[in-house]
Amino acid sequence: MDEFDLIKMYFAPLAGPEGLGLKDDAAHFSPPTGFDIILTKDTMVEGVHFPDGVYGADVAERLLRVNLSDLAAKAATPRGYLLSVAWPKHLDTKLLSGFAEGLKSCQEQFGLHLWGGDTVSTKGPAVFTATLIGVCPEGMSTRRMGASPGDDIWITGYLGKGFLGLAEIDGQIQNQQFIDGFYKPPPRIDLQKTLRTFASAAIDVSDGFVADLGHLAKASQVSATVEISNLSFPVSVKNFWQRGPEMVQKFLTHGDDYEIIFTAHPDYRENIISLAESLDFEVSHIGQCGQGGGVTILDGSLPLEFQSSGYTHF
Amino acid sequence: MDEFDLIKMYFAPLAGPEGLGLKDDAAHFSPPTGFDIILTKDTMVEGVHFPDGVYGADVAERLLRVNLSDLAAKAATPRGYLLSVAWPKHLDTKLLSGFAEGLKSCQEQFGLHLWGGDTVSTKGPAVFTATLIGVCPEGMSTRRMGASPGDDIWITGYLGKGFLGLAEIDGQIQNQQFIDGFYKPPPRIDLQKTLRTFASAAIDVSDGFVADLGHLAKASQVSATVEISNLSFPVSVKNFWQRGPEMVQKFLTHGDDYEIIFTAHPDYRENIISLAESLDFEVSHIGQCGQGGGVTILDGSLPLEFQSSGYTHF
Repeated sequence: MDEFDLIKMYFAPLAGPEGLGLKDDAAHFSPPTGFDIILTKDTMVEGVHFPDGVYGADVAERLLRVNLSDLAAKAATPRGYLLSVAWPKHLDTKLLSGFAEGLKSCQEQFGLHLWGGDTVSTKGPAVFTATLIGVCPEGMSTRRMGASPGDDIWITGYLGKGFLGLAEIDGQIQNQQFIDGFYKPPPRIDLQKTLRTFASAAIDVSDGFVADLGHLAKASQVSATVEISNLSFPVSVKNFWQRGPEMVQKFLTHGDDYEIIFTAHPDYRENIISLAESLDFEVSHIGQCGQGGGVTILDGSLPLEFQSSGYTHF
Repeated sequence: MDEFDLIKMYFAPLAGPEGLGLKDDAAHFSPPTGFDIILTKDTMVEGVHFPDGVYGADVAERLLRVNLSDLAAKAATPRGYLLSVAWPKHLDTKLLSGFAEGLKSCQEQFGLHLWGGDTVSTKGPAVFTATLIGVCPEGMSTRRMGASPGDDIWITGYLGKGFLGLAEIDGQIQNQQFIDGFYKPPPRIDLQKTLRTFASAAIDVSDGFVADLGHLAKASQVSATVEISNLSFPVSVKNFWQRGPEMVQKFLTHGDDYEIIFTAHPDYRENIISLAESLDFEVSHIGQCGQGGGVTILDGSLPLEFQSSGYTHF
């Protein structure tokens, strides 16, 4: 099967009208008037972002969901994506059917379509890149910059599941509770109304909670102080937690949690709590922005020390 | 140097306002009213699309230019791009400075800016992916479909340089005339006015002339007949040509020429020739569309046979 056949068989059924049936070299998108376009792009490499030899629905889901999380942090509505697949030459291209199933399932859940891309061979590990395109009413998207001293710091859901999912995949934990969440992190698209209406800044937790909060603080030129007891962890994580401070490090710096950190003026506190009631995830007020810079995580009144704030590639 | 440092050092200076200084996770683009957005994405793998061990300005130029060629075939004006770099872990990231130089030079020549992307490590060959974003007045972009029986077939520039460039790189030819053109194919952005005003369909020659003309014919549901003596080749290619029919195969099926094939109603013949006078490349009328399907290349009245119409990855 050459790339034309496999595009026709696996990818063309996923195409939206903007993708012209994947029979052209480019996508054509007529943007709605009065909307900004938000674009984000993430790459996943076999053996770096997911285990060697995993090429199926799980990887496809994860690829789209980590990108959807970036759109969620911008308060954007997902519309379409371009997909690049560098496929190991020695592997049967039929394995791509599982990958396409994952794309399909994710598309249906989040209302986006395939608009185009590229399928090539590689002599090395598989590399998948997705470029996601979303829209947001003009000027209403959220960015890392925009928080002011005095703003509340909020977060969705809970932390630690990225670290625990990978620990399960690596066999460090026998529990199989977090693997599914590792491949299918929940992009918080439903936070959109809250972000558009009340947030001053936002970022998703991909590099690590401390690192990402630091990115937001730096871009906004504020300091960020968070009380650790305000953060949520699932019960099994709390047990894990008792194993000592090095676990705290992991939960707060590993990343891959894909929750959204956002900031908002304290006047909006009640509105945010009220809107959160209709959501199927928690929204927690965890700290405050201040003058200056840097991130402080307090355990009671004691600041925690971190050896590393998040994952780096090099 | 971790990825944050290298983004700051090499890539942030290339960012346009839509890229928010590459300090955010997504690009924000406010599209002009009344324009369609054209998106295209191409991936290049070390050892597949360019020789092993080549990571510098040449590869960056080629990456952007092959994508610009797709935009050119759609009559779009390039605006920005997202870049994904999967960089071999054992290599010094300082080598990326050359790559960034190539991006810069190409940006300046074609008026586009970096809007975002992703930088990750890989244990395998380098993989570069660019997503280019262009704009075109609503409904005026060209596609593969749209040609009618009776339309003229046109092509820009000349063929064979993709094959010869690679043959020089591989050492099969000592002549160093086409290497530069291999890494810096000329995206025919200047054909924009011709395409928007007169063309019924268009495609760029990336897979191979016969294959790409076939894509256009298939999408448009027409046949395409081209007289080979109407095609242009540079003098040195003509000498090569005399080596026999297997060379004809190579020139017409190798691809990587990045010229534009387009079709237009015969009524526009004079207009197209007239507009071409201001261009710094040839625009040649090479054949006709007809009823039915398929591509026929005539040498006088004799149809040529092709073993393969173009490059495939698998």
